[in-house]
Amino acid sequence: MYATVMHGPGDVRYEQVNDPEILKPTDAIIQLSATCICGSDLWPYRGANAFDQPMHMGHEYCGVVIEVGADVKTIRPGQFVVGSFVLSDNTCPHCQFGYPSSCEQREFMTGAQAPYARVPLADGTLVATQDMPTEEQIPHMLAVSDVLGTGYYAAEAAGVREGSTAVVVGDGAVGLMAVLSAKLRGADRIIAMSRHETRQKLALEYGATDIVSARGEEGIAEVLELTKGVGADAVLECVGMQQSMDQAMGVCRPGGAVGFVGVPHGVTFDGQGLFFQQKRLFGGPAPVRRYLPDLMERVLSAEIQPGKVFDLTLPIAQVAEGYKAMDERRAIKTMLRV
Amino acid sequence: MYATVMHGPGDVRYEQVNDPEILKPTDAIIQLSATCICGSDLWPYRGANAFDQPMHMGHEYCGVVIEVGADVKTIRPGQFVVGSFVLSDNTCPHCQFGYPSSCEQREFMTGAQAPYARVPLADGTLVATQDMPTEEQIPHMLAVSDVLGTGYYAAEAAGVREGSTAVVVGDGAVGLMAVLSAKLRGADRIIAMSRHETRQKLALEYGATDIVSARGEEGIAEVLELTKGVGADAVLECVGMQQSMDQAMGVCRPGGAVGFVGVPHGVTFDGQGLFFQQKRLFGGPAPVRRYLPDLMERVLSAEIQPGKVFDLTLPIAQVAEGYKAMDERRAIKTMLRV
Repeated sequence: MYATVMHGPGDVRYEQVNDPEILKPTDAIIQLSATCICGSDLWPYRGANAFDQPMHMGHEYCGVVIEVGADVKTIRPGQFVVGSFVLSDNTCPHCQFGYPSSCEQREFMTGAQAPYARVPLADGTLVATQDMPTEEQIPHMLAVSDVLGTGYYAAEAAGVREGSTAVVVGDGAVGLMAVLSAKLRGADRIIAMSRHETRQKLALEYGATDIVSARGEEGIAEVLELTKGVGADAVLECVGMQQSMDQAMGVCRPGGAVGFVGVPHGVTFDGQGLFFQQKRLFGGPAPVRRYLPDLMERVLSAEIQPGKVFDLTLPIAQVAEGYKAMDERRAIKTMLRV
Repeated sequence: MYATVMHGPGDVRYEQVNDPEILKPTDAIIQLSATCICGSDLWPYRGANAFDQPMHMGHEYCGVVIEVGADVKTIRPGQFVVGSFVLSDNTCPHCQFGYPSSCEQREFMTGAQAPYARVPLADGTLVATQDMPTEEQIPHMLAVSDVLGTGYYAAEAAGVREGSTAVVVGDGAVGLMAVLSAKLRGADRIIAMSRHETRQKLALEYGATDIVSARGEEGIAEVLELTKGVGADAVLECVGMQQSMDQAMGVCRPGGAVGFVGVPHGVTFDGQGLFFQQKRLFGGPAPVRRYLPDLMERVLSAEIQPGKVFDLTLPIAQVAEGYKAMDERRAIKTMLRV
């Protein structure tokens, strides 16, 4: 088959690769209904990660099971499934504690920007629907796999609850999903920090009550003014850079929490600074597997439309253009038709 | 009066100073029933902090009110009071949110290693008892002011609850109070990391179920073995150095929490490391004022005896020896009779 391979910074190709096959008895092979490009795919695209060898890209997926390994018990061919971008057995103590994204057998999904993909730990990782979703539901189901689940984790990690005041730092796709998630968890006030008009519009549609377009010290001052000098109960950091983290810490109230879900690049914390600021900090790869049943149900019942973050859809053969559009911020998030 | 002044590293003197007086209408003057030396007093004693000028030492206190400023409403002369080492108004949004230690008017208590002391923000900071405590209760009441409250905060910040597995890193006075606090909050298992026999004994008396005397990687491995490879739900970091923080992070399970209450000295966190470890982090100066009514009541009802951490009692004129004994680890914590 053809699939997406990154050969180096800025160099994404749709090229011939081996077909995926069952390598372990716990694997499944799925035919993708759709796939997409993640903000985190831009890190290597922009040269932030070292390259050892060409990388098979893609970790967000939903589709139909076409084959399962001999030990797969709960998933069977013909089912429509959504899986987390983190592969997990869903049985180890960390999974049972609610953190499948720190599973003892944790692996990260790869190779999903393709028509077919191998999903290891299929029983633990995949959740099947009763019925086949409609074409219209596919983008929303796809979003659950990572971008919505990650935004939801930002809200959970930041402790958003009924009546909270929340701030979302970052207006990429995850940030927009974080706005939606803060709303789902009952935040009264959701301040989205965004400089881009189309993203501001979507943030408002997803439940933002205020937009702050300033950044850095000025942005912090504006949020403090909006919160009577107090700061937010919950801050959802969805970028992963020092500036965005400083901004997140700066708008959080003492005793409040910063949930951070953007993979930190070059971010450090000074222990004494953290101590005297007295703000909670919790992040990591989102435990999406735990959220899947609930979030998939909310999509199927049309309560939420997370797939609206896909503002560009391309045939997968044009995946290189999809990366370029996101890199240049012409697109929030690119969906790839397979 | 005479009081305790630190002139430089290792140089503590009991010398003549001005009597404390009401400087603001919200102040009170108390006559101390007893006072003590804090582990954090050893940071400047050991040269870890810069010295601008001689420092009036002491921030742990209980005693009898002898004078109040014109605006003090709830506290009156003749009352026995305990106060937090952090002065707070108890009315600002941060206080109301439960974090008086981040009060908008926050100040840190000083000058309490003396027979008399000025307590700013008296209404917000001090809690009075109905009756005068007995001589026997004084050390326990004194401990509530900081060392117990700080240990209690470590347990709260680490999320200790009914049935938790907790690890306490640090066997100083705060670490021992953290053991007691984990017990008070219902931990099933409390692993105390301690190398000193007398401290191990007290830890066991306060509720520790296991002692691990190894440190660093070896200590982490022992705790993991005790927890079937999983790690602890809650880790109470009561030291404030990089090694102890690494140890704390290392014994915590993913999704668990590290509560850190030792003022960090030279401690840094790598953002990406924190992300992939997926552990909660929360620390700061303890919100002791919030705990005072509850912890004082537990002392008065003889439920707890936190004052057992004072294993050396000296007349305050011998305060220099008190510092020396703690610095050389001959004493866990020194109480000073005034």
